[in-house]
Amino acid sequence: VTAAVAGAPARLHKRLADVVGAEAVRSDPGALAAYGIDATPLQRGKPSVVVFPTTTEQVAGVLRTASEAGVGVIPRGAGTNLSAGTVAHHGEILLVLTKMNALLEIDAENLCAVCQPGLQTARLGDAVEAQGLLYPPDPGSRTTATIGGNVAENAGGMRGLKYGVTRDYVLGVEAVLASGEVIRVGGKVVKNVAGYDLTRLLCGSEGTLAVLTELTLRLVPKPQASSVGTAYFGDLASAGRAVSRTLAAGVLPATLEFLDAYCIKTVEAFAGVGLDTSAGALLIFGQDGSAETVSADMERIADACRAEGATDIRRASDAAEATRLMEARRAALPALARLGPITLLEDATVPRSKLAEMVERIEAIAASYGLTIGTFGHAGDGNLHPTCVLASNSAEEVERAHRAFTEIFAAAIELGGVITGEHGVGLAKLPWLEANLGSAQMALLRRIKQAFDPAGILNPGKLGS
Amino acid sequence: VTAAVAGAPARLHKRLADVVGAEAVRSDPGALAAYGIDATPLQRGKPSVVVFPTTTEQVAGVLRTASEAGVGVIPRGAGTNLSAGTVAHHGEILLVLTKMNALLEIDAENLCAVCQPGLQTARLGDAVEAQGLLYPPDPGSRTTATIGGNVAENAGGMRGLKYGVTRDYVLGVEAVLASGEVIRVGGKVVKNVAGYDLTRLLCGSEGTLAVLTELTLRLVPKPQASSVGTAYFGDLASAGRAVSRTLAAGVLPATLEFLDAYCIKTVEAFAGVGLDTSAGALLIFGQDGSAETVSADMERIADACRAEGATDIRRASDAAEATRLMEARRAALPALARLGPITLLEDATVPRSKLAEMVERIEAIAASYGLTIGTFGHAGDGNLHPTCVLASNSAEEVERAHRAFTEIFAAAIELGGVITGEHGVGLAKLPWLEANLGSAQMALLRRIKQAFDPAGILNPGKLGS
Repeated sequence: VTAAVAGAPARLHKRLADVVGAEAVRSDPGALAAYGIDATPLQRGKPSVVVFPTTTEQVAGVLRTASEAGVGVIPRGAGTNLSAGTVAHHGEILLVLTKMNALLEIDAENLCAVCQPGLQTARLGDAVEAQGLLYPPDPGSRTTATIGGNVAENAGGMRGLKYGVTRDYVLGVEAVLASGEVIRVGGKVVKNVAGYDLTRLLCGSEGTLAVLTELTLRLVPKPQASSVGTAYFGDLASAGRAVSRTLAAGVLPATLEFLDAYCIKTVEAFAGVGLDTSAGALLIFGQDGSAETVSADMERIADACRAEGATDIRRASDAAEATRLMEARRAALPALARLGPITLLEDATVPRSKLAEMVERIEAIAASYGLTIGTFGHAGDGNLHPTCVLASNSAEEVERAHRAFTEIFAAAIELGGVITGEHGVGLAKLPWLEANLGSAQMALLRRIKQAFDPAGILNPGKLGS
Repeated sequence: VTAAVAGAPARLHKRLADVVGAEAVRSDPGALAAYGIDATPLQRGKPSVVVFPTTTEQVAGVLRTASEAGVGVIPRGAGTNLSAGTVAHHGEILLVLTKMNALLEIDAENLCAVCQPGLQTARLGDAVEAQGLLYPPDPGSRTTATIGGNVAENAGGMRGLKYGVTRDYVLGVEAVLASGEVIRVGGKVVKNVAGYDLTRLLCGSEGTLAVLTELTLRLVPKPQASSVGTAYFGDLASAGRAVSRTLAAGVLPATLEFLDAYCIKTVEAFAGVGLDTSAGALLIFGQDGSAETVSADMERIADACRAEGATDIRRASDAAEATRLMEARRAALPALARLGPITLLEDATVPRSKLAEMVERIEAIAASYGLTIGTFGHAGDGNLHPTCVLASNSAEEVERAHRAFTEIFAAAIELGGVITGEHGVGLAKLPWLEANLGSAQMALLRRIKQAFDPAGILNPGKLGS
């Protein structure tokens, strides 16, 4: 599949209208522009047509129509992904699932929820919390992003170390194959080895293997208590050692986030939350569980930070202060983004013990290319977000950043890491994937893609292509 | 691949000896008989030859030799699987990985261990415990089974509800494809979305997609304290309600096992641990964590049991008593096995809330077929082990049990469950898989199998065939 049928957009529009209804198909310039982008900078595509199905049958009909017409289909939710995973580069059909947004069931007895893919993650979170339950995955985009997008991207977030990522909470899916066939995999069962694990294979497949139309998600009891604290360090290496010391003390914190010196200054200038801008690194830590466990663990984390020379170790005195501290971390990206016309956010991940070394490598690479790169991220997961603020959007500067990131990814791989921990491959990371996986594994990914989608209809030109 | 090259076993033996060394190839009747079976009753196969590689390169060489000769290869560890997953039905090469049993590294800082597939699960468990860490998966066969077998089967066990299963602890694998190519997927990173999730796809693939040669496994800090207790109920429905009540109270127990009345009597007659043989059901519950959490949670579980009419709720007073209570549960299978010449252990799984209903269905089906079926299992996971003790090994009685299990699997599927929660599909469950997954998903499994193994060399005639 390389392009829309030449000269046939009007006919495609009409055939799709027969499937989803005329009011659910748009090919006006406004719609094509709005759905031509996702949250990735520097990437702008142009779909042929945008459709808004409301049922699984309509999704199947769209895929059959696309197959007949030889046009690609890009499924998407809110479009918050940061890897150009939903950008149309070949005039594809944009299949927007935001109208399939029902929360079908919260099943407290089986500790799970069933929903459609277009449901906003935060809405699910609020609904289950009202019943004393928790859906742990906590991606930064949770107030906007959809569950279907989270599953398709295997979204991470701030609770990875203790709770894992989206993949760890998907028990079952209904999905439509490129052929239009509907499969149901897994369900309300926590143990299941009946067949290959398609549930997890679809998780993180970025819309290239099937279209998700229903999700069964695992929940856990909501912890009784939680707490957040902060510690400042002279440098990131000390913060990294405090993380190791915390884990060695037998504590698995619910939150372990870090900001480097540049990010501390930038967030403080943006949000004015009272951060110590003279520090070399900030660690934001948190725990949840019973009140006694939270209290004991927070003390042990503070001890670990103190032993590594942390200054000004502080524990939020109430929920409002805890929220404010977490907001400082969440403000990192918007704070960096306002510093220049283009902000490139990356997502390299290394073994936790290599965090400080990786940050030093990033700083050296940034200096050698004359770039400003601040790094923040998930210290407990070794998941770094080196963020490059460009002074201009000149082709030369963009190209320079591109070359710097190539070196950053090579460093991550050299340290035993990967080029993306939670943002996905999409179009943006595809050029570096083979360096990470090797040619035999790349060929295997392509064969898996063909097993699901022999005609290459689903999100063409991305993962598995 | 249907059979060994006719008349060429001696040549195959010699070619394999060139790869792994003469001392590591056996085709004497003793070896062929010993490796012709695994732990599955009524299943006996006959491999052509048995090989014991010691390196990844040798594994790759065996696979290339097999491809050239057109002979299938069945990878196995200790052969404890219960679904005939490693039985040779077509004169295959038995690739025994027990000599590749090194524990390569315990990396406390990154909370992971790296090992070869032939390492015994209990040996890994003991080694990491000595460093204050825990490898949570806890299959019943852990003292015999190997990590590679656990991963290939996605083994479950007694900690599923709180800790998940083997899949949830595999961070990375080295694996040899049917072609002899070696891939490395994942590693010491807890977040990773670089490519399709091959790590989890290989987990539970039962040796049909690739041969695992190295595993990187996630560990957690060892809980400070743990405790085990028991509660007797008049019937299983009450025990099931106590489970629901426990979860509704916000407790996620580390252990929630059950025995029905028949299993209680059988275990007591076998092990003499002082069980109340007049009870309708026994619930064995446990929690781990900080001492305060364990104490508070055990009280809340006891409260939930009391509210559902449990009698004689008891908490182990020390570690020795806790071990004895868990032994009662672990004794269920051996106790049942000595009652007749053949004991068929099954593995249906339903949503947790359907546990009692499923046991009632099993009892009715057993009665209608004139069979004795006792049921025990993992109440927290809805994972039942209905176990049929045959009075004789007559073909008629085996066939009757087969028909009864067909009805049991249909009931599990009807209740939203699956035909196997943790034992795998193998040869034993394959006849029922399509009823569980549907024809479109079965066809997809076959295409995935072909993507990995186009010539069908790996564990032929099993999953994906």
